[in-house]
Amino acid sequence: MTRQIRLNGFIGFSPVHLSPGLWAHPASRGADYNTLDYWVDIAKVLERGKFDALFIADGIGVHDVYGGNADAAIRSGAQFPKLDPLMLVSALAHETKDLGFGITASTSHELPAVLARRFSSLDHFTQGRIGWNIVTGYSDSGARAVGREKVIAHDTRYDRADEFLEVAYKLWESSWEDAAVVRDRASGTFADPSRVHRVRHEGRHFDIDTIHLTEPSLQRTPYLFQAGASPRGRAFAARHAEAVFVGGPTPASIAPGIADIRARAAALGRDPRDIAVFTLATAIPARSRAEADDKLADYRRYTDPDGVLALFSGWTGIDFSAFDLDAPLTLSEVKENAVQSLLETFTVAEPDRVWTLREIIAHNGIGGRGPLFAGTPADIADELEAWVAAADVDGFNLSHAFFPDTFTDVVDLLVPELQRRGLYKQDYETGTLRGKLSGSDRLKETHAGAAYRRLSEAA
Amino acid sequence: MTRQIRLNGFIGFSPVHLSPGLWAHPASRGADYNTLDYWVDIAKVLERGKFDALFIADGIGVHDVYGGNADAAIRSGAQFPKLDPLMLVSALAHETKDLGFGITASTSHELPAVLARRFSSLDHFTQGRIGWNIVTGYSDSGARAVGREKVIAHDTRYDRADEFLEVAYKLWESSWEDAAVVRDRASGTFADPSRVHRVRHEGRHFDIDTIHLTEPSLQRTPYLFQAGASPRGRAFAARHAEAVFVGGPTPASIAPGIADIRARAAALGRDPRDIAVFTLATAIPARSRAEADDKLADYRRYTDPDGVLALFSGWTGIDFSAFDLDAPLTLSEVKENAVQSLLETFTVAEPDRVWTLREIIAHNGIGGRGPLFAGTPADIADELEAWVAAADVDGFNLSHAFFPDTFTDVVDLLVPELQRRGLYKQDYETGTLRGKLSGSDRLKETHAGAAYRRLSEAA
Repeated sequence: MTRQIRLNGFIGFSPVHLSPGLWAHPASRGADYNTLDYWVDIAKVLERGKFDALFIADGIGVHDVYGGNADAAIRSGAQFPKLDPLMLVSALAHETKDLGFGITASTSHELPAVLARRFSSLDHFTQGRIGWNIVTGYSDSGARAVGREKVIAHDTRYDRADEFLEVAYKLWESSWEDAAVVRDRASGTFADPSRVHRVRHEGRHFDIDTIHLTEPSLQRTPYLFQAGASPRGRAFAARHAEAVFVGGPTPASIAPGIADIRARAAALGRDPRDIAVFTLATAIPARSRAEADDKLADYRRYTDPDGVLALFSGWTGIDFSAFDLDAPLTLSEVKENAVQSLLETFTVAEPDRVWTLREIIAHNGIGGRGPLFAGTPADIADELEAWVAAADVDGFNLSHAFFPDTFTDVVDLLVPELQRRGLYKQDYETGTLRGKLSGSDRLKETHAGAAYRRLSEAA
Repeated sequence: MTRQIRLNGFIGFSPVHLSPGLWAHPASRGADYNTLDYWVDIAKVLERGKFDALFIADGIGVHDVYGGNADAAIRSGAQFPKLDPLMLVSALAHETKDLGFGITASTSHELPAVLARRFSSLDHFTQGRIGWNIVTGYSDSGARAVGREKVIAHDTRYDRADEFLEVAYKLWESSWEDAAVVRDRASGTFADPSRVHRVRHEGRHFDIDTIHLTEPSLQRTPYLFQAGASPRGRAFAARHAEAVFVGGPTPASIAPGIADIRARAAALGRDPRDIAVFTLATAIPARSRAEADDKLADYRRYTDPDGVLALFSGWTGIDFSAFDLDAPLTLSEVKENAVQSLLETFTVAEPDRVWTLREIIAHNGIGGRGPLFAGTPADIADELEAWVAAADVDGFNLSHAFFPDTFTDVVDLLVPELQRRGLYKQDYETGTLRGKLSGSDRLKETHAGAAYRRLSEAA
């Protein structure tokens, strides 16, 4: 069977996610980001297009590196303000049947027993359609919001996250046996106490003694997404992730990292194909190339340069407000690695070209650091196929210029083309998010979390 | 105008809340407590009855004092398992228009900036219908779940909660000016940075430096419920609460506490009537007294004595598993205060009677420690009127035997009787929860939180 391409909708809980300025396009509903109807409509469009999940980015910081303050982010609505995606899920769950939800939550400002209960609650409400995008928090701005002057050192964050997951697995997988809940009205027995177990954990970061507060949900452990790109992040992903989220401008720029994660997973005894890899992209399909060009040109008129630079500065740690927009970017003037990472987004694609910041803003103001595919459905399907073949990705986290246009265009134009090619499902399979993505409602036996399940069954 | 009686629906996120065993009644849907449809239907019934709010109890502990373990709670489904009410709100918000939500969340296992964002998100989704029932956590069981061997000492908990609220007020009231968000498409300005302010707080318990992550919602600060009954709890309520939740078997048993809270509020410069007082009760209305008696007798056949004692033991700290069910209860055998509090539930009502534990279980197995009113709508309306007059309460947090029967009976039988008497609104007023309950969308000028607003406006 031809390898199927999977799609998630990728969006932040703000007026603007990766396309600063586009909220102001006359057709955009981005200014309504704080209403339930906006999100219900997004979820329904994605479900109509048989997307696997709505993937919601999050973080508790504000981009305040550019100009040394948050003014550009605030003015342009670039990833700010920002509501809490965990609070949103139940409304979308009630209005959909098959769409999954990839919800970002940080191990750095939640307690394991409390967050584990939250995801279990959502897994009940969605009947097994919840995924957790595990993040550990990367910004100083976010750290200051919760009372730490600087973000916890990178590797310490991951050590803490490893232990957080260990505690969560114990709660999700070992506290309640499958046969524990009987709901027997005749005897008045809701659950069998002999099959419900207390979890005790004394570790370096956490120390708990509790029964998991919820009965088992369909997936028990939520489907686990992760996006770490560093070596330590990849080690974490190889152990915990069932899907990873990567990003880069070309297949060649992401292929080595993907191969590394799959190899690390194999070294841990997992099937490297048990990790679904989604890469960031934005697709602007139209009925002709001319129409696509026009559409893109129209969108780009709304790009907000300050908003774009607020994101670039936030991501790289470099204050681009001091830069001449029209001078060629060179690596010598600032921290090499960060400008390198910005330049790589383009130089890999056009290795002989010299870029100015203004050109980068224009080129990359829609969809952030991922590729932007604008063209006919056939053009874009060709691109996606090429990426899958060259980079070994399983699918795409599709960003948008704005809602509704980008996602409705993808659903109405691109999805049918992928289906015609046999590259995309004709309909959802039934069942949980994990079942749809991996064929199993529960963690596979080779996943780190399954070890806690076996311990429980032996008890 | 006759004083209006206000009603909230009071329920926990479990198969059973205050009526152990009743989930197994053939008409009960309690076993579906973990589905969205169950809750959406509850919300719609309450809204049909023009209830002010659905009030959801919560706590992260399990009742494990009875028999020294959680077996009885687990077996009977008594307040266990227990899902997270914060996760539920958006689905109910999308299916209702006027009903408010009183959601319990603890200051002991959340971070102020994170929880403040959660409530702001819910205030956006509900268009100003969210209330926060502030709890500080009272059980050792809950403390162990989050890594503290014993619950934090009572007064320390309240000191921490006071500072938590101070931080939250700063975020809600002072970070964004009313005029900050402009959503001006022509200039591409989402918000005016000069009207968005960083909140710096260095305190004993919290130390933060952040902009509140959400723009102002209709209420800004959620409507504040609180239920502390101790002197320290009352001091907290007098300062922070806009509604308090009390409970007792007779008007005389609660009147002094209510008068004390109102007096404390007045001493702080507030109008004592700006605190709405709700007292716990369960109403079982029927078309005749005989039918009410039959209904109650039918319900009581399902009472689960072990489940009832699991609650009693959890609330009092006394392990009632060692007690002879048929011996008269005396104060000498165990800690006086706790048995006193259990006995008071009955002896105040029938001062000359000696009670056995079995009688208390039968008498109080439905609706917990509040009064149980079973009778015709006129009988129950008389009782409610008498309580309002004698105890100076503003309304009732109505518990139920099970859903749907109790709430539908109240809505179909009792509410029309109260309306006929001019004691109950004919329809909702429009607007926010605070607007409906106090006439103002925002905190009143005399409320502690308003001081932070003024600081901001002066800045």
